[in-house]
Amino acid sequence: MTEAEDQIATEDDREEEDDYSLDRRAVAAVLYAVEVEDRDKLIELMEPMHAADIADLLEQINPYDRGRLLRLYDLEFDGEILSELDESIREEVMEVLRPETLAEAVRDMESDDVVDLLEDLDETQQEAILDVLEDADRVAVEQALSYPEFSAGRLMQRETVMAPEHWTVGDAIDYMRNAEELPEQFYHVILIDPRMRPVANVSLGKIMGAPRTSPLKNLAEEMFRVFRVTQDEGDVAYAFNQYHLISAPVVDEDERLVGVITIDDAMAVLDEEHEEDILRLAGVGEESSLSDRVIETTRQRLPWLAVNLVTAILASLVIAQFEATIAQFVALAVLMPIVASMGGNAGTQSLTVAVRAIATKDLTGANVWRVIRREVLVGLVNGVVFAVVMGIVGVIWFGSPMLGVVIAVAMVINLVVAGLAGTGIPVLLEKIGVDPALASGAFVTTVTDVVGFFAFLALAGAVLL
Amino acid sequence: MTEAEDQIATEDDREEEDDYSLDRRAVAAVLYAVEVEDRDKLIELMEPMHAADIADLLEQINPYDRGRLLRLYDLEFDGEILSELDESIREEVMEVLRPETLAEAVRDMESDDVVDLLEDLDETQQEAILDVLEDADRVAVEQALSYPEFSAGRLMQRETVMAPEHWTVGDAIDYMRNAEELPEQFYHVILIDPRMRPVANVSLGKIMGAPRTSPLKNLAEEMFRVFRVTQDEGDVAYAFNQYHLISAPVVDEDERLVGVITIDDAMAVLDEEHEEDILRLAGVGEESSLSDRVIETTRQRLPWLAVNLVTAILASLVIAQFEATIAQFVALAVLMPIVASMGGNAGTQSLTVAVRAIATKDLTGANVWRVIRREVLVGLVNGVVFAVVMGIVGVIWFGSPMLGVVIAVAMVINLVVAGLAGTGIPVLLEKIGVDPALASGAFVTTVTDVVGFFAFLALAGAVLL
Repeated sequence: MTEAEDQIATEDDREEEDDYSLDRRAVAAVLYAVEVEDRDKLIELMEPMHAADIADLLEQINPYDRGRLLRLYDLEFDGEILSELDESIREEVMEVLRPETLAEAVRDMESDDVVDLLEDLDETQQEAILDVLEDADRVAVEQALSYPEFSAGRLMQRETVMAPEHWTVGDAIDYMRNAEELPEQFYHVILIDPRMRPVANVSLGKIMGAPRTSPLKNLAEEMFRVFRVTQDEGDVAYAFNQYHLISAPVVDEDERLVGVITIDDAMAVLDEEHEEDILRLAGVGEESSLSDRVIETTRQRLPWLAVNLVTAILASLVIAQFEATIAQFVALAVLMPIVASMGGNAGTQSLTVAVRAIATKDLTGANVWRVIRREVLVGLVNGVVFAVVMGIVGVIWFGSPMLGVVIAVAMVINLVVAGLAGTGIPVLLEKIGVDPALASGAFVTTVTDVVGFFAFLALAGAVLL
Repeated sequence: MTEAEDQIATEDDREEEDDYSLDRRAVAAVLYAVEVEDRDKLIELMEPMHAADIADLLEQINPYDRGRLLRLYDLEFDGEILSELDESIREEVMEVLRPETLAEAVRDMESDDVVDLLEDLDETQQEAILDVLEDADRVAVEQALSYPEFSAGRLMQRETVMAPEHWTVGDAIDYMRNAEELPEQFYHVILIDPRMRPVANVSLGKIMGAPRTSPLKNLAEEMFRVFRVTQDEGDVAYAFNQYHLISAPVVDEDERLVGVITIDDAMAVLDEEHEEDILRLAGVGEESSLSDRVIETTRQRLPWLAVNLVTAILASLVIAQFEATIAQFVALAVLMPIVASMGGNAGTQSLTVAVRAIATKDLTGANVWRVIRREVLVGLVNGVVFAVVMGIVGVIWFGSPMLGVVIAVAMVINLVVAGLAGTGIPVLLEKIGVDPALASGAFVTTVTDVVGFFAFLALAGAVLL
């Protein structure tokens, strides 16, 4: 069987379970080897696994097994596993590894991965890691750490392949063939002017297809973007996605080439930012992960529940104003959560669309009023639909046409308000510099709860009593 | 000023507003040119814009302006704009374009972009587009459409650069230099065996750095993954992200090479899937976008509101069982939404983490029980914290220690249930083949509403009366 057949066969086997998730039996086999302390078997089982899959495995087993596995695996532990590990357990893993194993692992890592590793450590830990690096790597890492967190400077690799703008294809090929070391991954030769400023990208594919005498300039890519070291990594990722970039040069404040960002780094950032947005929208701390401990998870979620408690109490204060009304007509207590709940849901729909549109830069000054108008209209139409439904339910259930009318009117009011608040609040938060994904939910549901209870109970008080 | 300076200067200017979002003044200038029907000015303004930005602009203006702009821009309209456009307005744009303009635009597009365009059209429209293509392109597009939707076969490009496994670097370079046409984008030479089965990838960078006599085999990339044409595009995107792939061959059922998928396509899929997950979690139709019309948006959101109405009514039915209790003690009506709301929030936190972990394949059979235990414990700890807070609030507000105890106990129960349901329901839905992002929310909030109201009112009935 050729290597390819083997590859395909493996994937076929896996597909029967679930493409690319860790095989339950594989995990069990690994844990068994750990249990019986069979180091050779463990190495044999882990050898064919990709570092990213080993990292997943370490994340999925419990801390006790994790410690035993790492101690048994010992010097086989690869630096790449460390960079693939979720931050939440990375520190724990680093504490379990013997200093020699850790030093060996770190020396194997690419310098941008070491940067990623160091970012989350305190200074003593950082020093300990920096000490094991070779001088050149150490300088590279320290330089990268001097750029702001989440900046293009932290994301880029310093190794670039550049050529003076007047070179030909032949010049470039000869240069590369004679270069002592080329970057592990590169897709473009960056043309620079005499002051080291990048002026164009030439893809390796174009160089491959052109005669040796072709000037590189003539092969320049149409799409060329330059990033500043201080630029936010989120904006870099957005530009890669928007303009279909593969790699792009990074320049310092003097516009000189200092590094290059490749699409795989941008893809990782995009993935993280999405993840954060989803978790923030749900009021879960952004660094949340499955391998966090109970106490850590509790600490992350508690603030958002506390915010929710305050908003819930606000809503209760509204209800308290109508105690007398409810005492006379208990059906109100039965029906009022429906109005609030529908408003909360409609508001969440609007705000999710708005938060996403802000993140993808689709919601701008140019169309904000049109979007708000649309959301309000959608709220109105849905409000009328559900008003009719609930009016009928109210009449049938409690035999009171007036109660049906009250709940119907309250429903329309609350769904219109939900559309307005669901779009307006994220836009306002963005304007004043607060992350709309983080804070919109609490505000919007407060509005829909308060308006929902108030509209329903006030109307009922006026009409029914 | 060199081109690079110009580039950087432009980005600096933009940053003062918001990196990469459309400039409000630029949009206004374009709309003014449309208003006064100044075609030259319009072309001058749009010329430097990237197709993706033009597409964003078209999405953000209203349909009336959009129509006028397209008619004025006419033959300048580029095929790439069409592929960048959001599906929701693509059809509208295609109807406005003159048949000649549309034909011209489609002929300019890459065949995989044409496939993407055709997917959403009905058969007559598909035929009309296919008719304007050249024969070779038409065959390529029809072949791609024969693969299932959202499959690797639809995602791949058919143009590959391959080489027999025994070739040297020199062979490959000569072949590429003499090739009539190389793919627009490619990063690897794919080594194939005599039966056309891919066996390894050699990166262009490695070829550039090696002597002409090196066998290509010796330069093969360590990481090599092969996809089947029928494989789901979501799995392909996951593998690109997990294994840091740049490009990967696609094979047919006989394991023969039929195309290649590159990271930019995978990045686009990952982006779309994230977007879908976010929107599904919020109960918004997955194809939702800002440029949808009111009626379309209403239609997308209505079903989820209807589901919510049913769950809200269920909760009301629970409350209705305790009408007599509430009538005697109206404070219950005031406080009961707090218990339900806290449970709903905690449940949403748990379910979001679970849904994400399922999507990233971090939540598997190996750790599901540990995760559920953790979520229940987190619910318990947070429950106790908020039970104490609410107990005190209950006593102070209503002067009844027993009421404080009731709300405290109900809070603990509901937050524990929230942790259990928030993790268990997505896992169960995934097991029975239902997308957990789509359906979990409704189930989890139903559970927390019902349990919240029931626990609080039943306890109150037993203790207070």
